[in-house]
Amino acid sequence: MAVANKFDHLRVVLVAARNPLNIGAAARAMSNFGFHHLRVVNPYEAAFREARSAVGASALLARAEECKTVAEAVADCTLVVGTTAVRHRELQHPLRRLEYGARLVRKQLGTNRVALLFGSEKFGLSNAALSHCHWLMRIPTCDENISMNLGQAVAVCLYELVRDGNTARQTEKVKRATAEELERITTTLLEAMRGSGYLDRRPIADVEERVRRLIRRLNLPARDAVVWLGILRQIVWKLRLSPPDSGF
Amino acid sequence: MAVANKFDHLRVVLVAARNPLNIGAAARAMSNFGFHHLRVVNPYEAAFREARSAVGASALLARAEECKTVAEAVADCTLVVGTTAVRHRELQHPLRRLEYGARLVRKQLGTNRVALLFGSEKFGLSNAALSHCHWLMRIPTCDENISMNLGQAVAVCLYELVRDGNTARQTEKVKRATAEELERITTTLLEAMRGSGYLDRRPIADVEERVRRLIRRLNLPARDAVVWLGILRQIVWKLRLSPPDSGF
Repeated sequence: MAVANKFDHLRVVLVAARNPLNIGAAARAMSNFGFHHLRVVNPYEAAFREARSAVGASALLARAEECKTVAEAVADCTLVVGTTAVRHRELQHPLRRLEYGARLVRKQLGTNRVALLFGSEKFGLSNAALSHCHWLMRIPTCDENISMNLGQAVAVCLYELVRDGNTARQTEKVKRATAEELERITTTLLEAMRGSGYLDRRPIADVEERVRRLIRRLNLPARDAVVWLGILRQIVWKLRLSPPDSGF
Repeated sequence: MAVANKFDHLRVVLVAARNPLNIGAAARAMSNFGFHHLRVVNPYEAAFREARSAVGASALLARAEECKTVAEAVADCTLVVGTTAVRHRELQHPLRRLEYGARLVRKQLGTNRVALLFGSEKFGLSNAALSHCHWLMRIPTCDENISMNLGQAVAVCLYELVRDGNTARQTEKVKRATAEELERITTTLLEAMRGSGYLDRRPIADVEERVRRLIRRLNLPARDAVVWLGILRQIVWKLRLSPPDSGF
């Protein structure tokens, strides 16, 4: 698949991650969204060992590369993008919102290797780590609480990379009732309305058109149309058996 | 802020969550993306107590409502949307990709309360819980590993709700060098090229135009332009002191 090859060009780089749960969570999100190459720079040794040996730790985590420095982790990449929660940091780097930055990353991934850097849970990326980045990306969090959990930040960034902007008119996969089925329901409902005496008590102008629109507005799935028709037919059948004006 | 009010209409509903870390992570993602109302249905009692009392547990978590049933948790909402990793589940519900479903949810949030349901870590939403939903949404994960961590799934869904599709041409916040500054750098670099003897050894046709384009391609930030100009001027100054053809 072309897309899988493209995403093969991404290196997710965790710099100085402390919490084994977060390293595991990052690996899980990568696996969810189809990314395969994790690099871990200078992790707290125990955390990395623990993450790797955790129950359910993935092949992806087992294959993760351990690097001594950021320079080593990004050496084979042509674009290095840092993630940050901070808005300004004196603007030493161009700072892009994730929605836009991810688009630029996606373009590069077609032909080049890209490194996406995440900092430690507590401090984010250091200035030294940031100096390896071409530019920075920030997730559009609220001013009141800008700092995301590491595993969640990785998940959101990777989601944005794979999300499909062209699903606006993606059709539902539920088969809708045909006009013929809807018309049959309309007719049967009208019959039930007449048979029950409803229309005698509440005469309606243009009743057929009104009921037809009422049924169309239900936007019935094909499966439900069958059920409704069965219910209404049964009601009509029963009404025919009833003596005229019974109950009134 | 209009947007904040709008997002006030969302109820995030965790059904039968087991892991206190996940309940806490869901609350943290809500806080990151500006959502305030968490409802927890029938949580493992110990898990919920533990999540609430955890260090750093937010006010949001403290205010979370505990409900006995899904019906109670969604009673005041006009749209109820379930999340699922499963693709088919025999299509008892319309199933929409997150990109598209979130758009529909956003529209409703303008005027109506919407409940967004997440199931337990292990089993997702039960068929009973799903029966309360108008439709379902799925995060576009890979077939190889469709099941996301609960906290990460909440983060990704809420991010999609707040993401801004109109950032395509969002400009960088780095101030770029002016044409005047670039021209000064061009002139100084040309002088350095001449002064160093570079142009004698490698004559270039249309050298001024070429160097001008070379400098423009650098796309220099204003701050860096100053630095480059300083460096080049120093070099030119030093070159003027050197005897002609020194070093050759």
